[in-house]
Amino acid sequence: MAGTKKLQDLELRLERTEQQLVMLQKISRLMVRKMSLPEVLQAIVALVVEATRCDSCLIYLIDSGELVLCASNNPHPSEIGRIRLKMGEGLTGWVAKERRMVAIPREANKDPRFHFFKNLPEDTFEAFISVPVISRDQVVGVINVQHRQPHAHSGSEMEMLRTVGEQVGCVIVLARLGEEADWKSSHVEFLLASAPPMPGKKLV
Amino acid sequence: MAGTKKLQDLELRLERTEQQLVMLQKISRLMVRKMSLPEVLQAIVALVVEATRCDSCLIYLIDSGELVLCASNNPHPSEIGRIRLKMGEGLTGWVAKERRMVAIPREANKDPRFHFFKNLPEDTFEAFISVPVISRDQVVGVINVQHRQPHAHSGSEMEMLRTVGEQVGCVIVLARLGEEADWKSSHVEFLLASAPPMPGKKLV
Repeated sequence: MAGTKKLQDLELRLERTEQQLVMLQKISRLMVRKMSLPEVLQAIVALVVEATRCDSCLIYLIDSGELVLCASNNPHPSEIGRIRLKMGEGLTGWVAKERRMVAIPREANKDPRFHFFKNLPEDTFEAFISVPVISRDQVVGVINVQHRQPHAHSGSEMEMLRTVGEQVGCVIVLARLGEEADWKSSHVEFLLASAPPMPGKKLV
Repeated sequence: MAGTKKLQDLELRLERTEQQLVMLQKISRLMVRKMSLPEVLQAIVALVVEATRCDSCLIYLIDSGELVLCASNNPHPSEIGRIRLKMGEGLTGWVAKERRMVAIPREANKDPRFHFFKNLPEDTFEAFISVPVISRDQVVGVINVQHRQPHAHSGSEMEMLRTVGEQVGCVIVLARLGEEADWKSSHVEFLLASAPPMPGKKLV
């Protein structure tokens, strides 16, 4: 029986590790393709959702010292480009300011740093993990991953998300190179200028 | 006994998958640091050697339609920047021209496409795998991994090296951004101009 349990544990660990590896490989594949930045960010969000089985994945990028919601797995078309947080505001702002990951397995919204949006369902989610997006050694954004139910983030899950944050940082630079947009504009301006219409319905 | 065998197989697969994952994570970490391109390429070569337990790892980049040796795990200081192959010449040139991976588990030097350098020990190695380096949807180089003894390349090993080829392509673009070098110069010119002295002794 102990052997069976060990076998099952190993199979599960192998499955999860393979999933993480495949996710990074898929992100790498996106990086060498000629896709628009909004398309790449949406594709990365979908991959993170698949790999972490989370209920929400949001990518914020920094624009004029504020964090702006730029991609989401939930259809927030009216919020993309509009939801803004100051550096240091909420858990997201804290992560950007401190350049540190935060992982809260339950009752995330009871954390004193939590910022309520009132109009986002994520306000009620239990588990929260957030990693900085790093580009050329600078924090240029934040990725938030939330589970509706309590969720203990494993070390490998944290490490994987840290890597996703780095890869997204590289993606931004690479996508900008592929465009003739004004390099002096912010990443967010560039992203919103090149965004195709977002699918999905308006949230209540 | 069958259970023990299965357990061992699983442990081995998990170990290898974890190694591959860690390698990609380490490459990602290099990508967001401010390092010179030669330093990053040498660090990637070292990671590939560790993950594949190969005897040789060489990175070639394209310069004026030719492939130029730019990084190596073996001390080839006099060859860096000097060994050149035409597109389509040897297995390396074939991979660059066809934009396809090639994997030969044994007697690689009997392949009709093989190119003998005469002065490189790799000429006698049994197993050979080579992947294109892709940058912005173009082939910009090739990575060769060789084992002295016959070596059956697993599917996951191939997939991992394909990803390394993509990541190296991104690394090149990112490293160039960090420099004020003339963008019109080739990647190789840029790399050689920024190379620190290479360690190691001259080959006989």
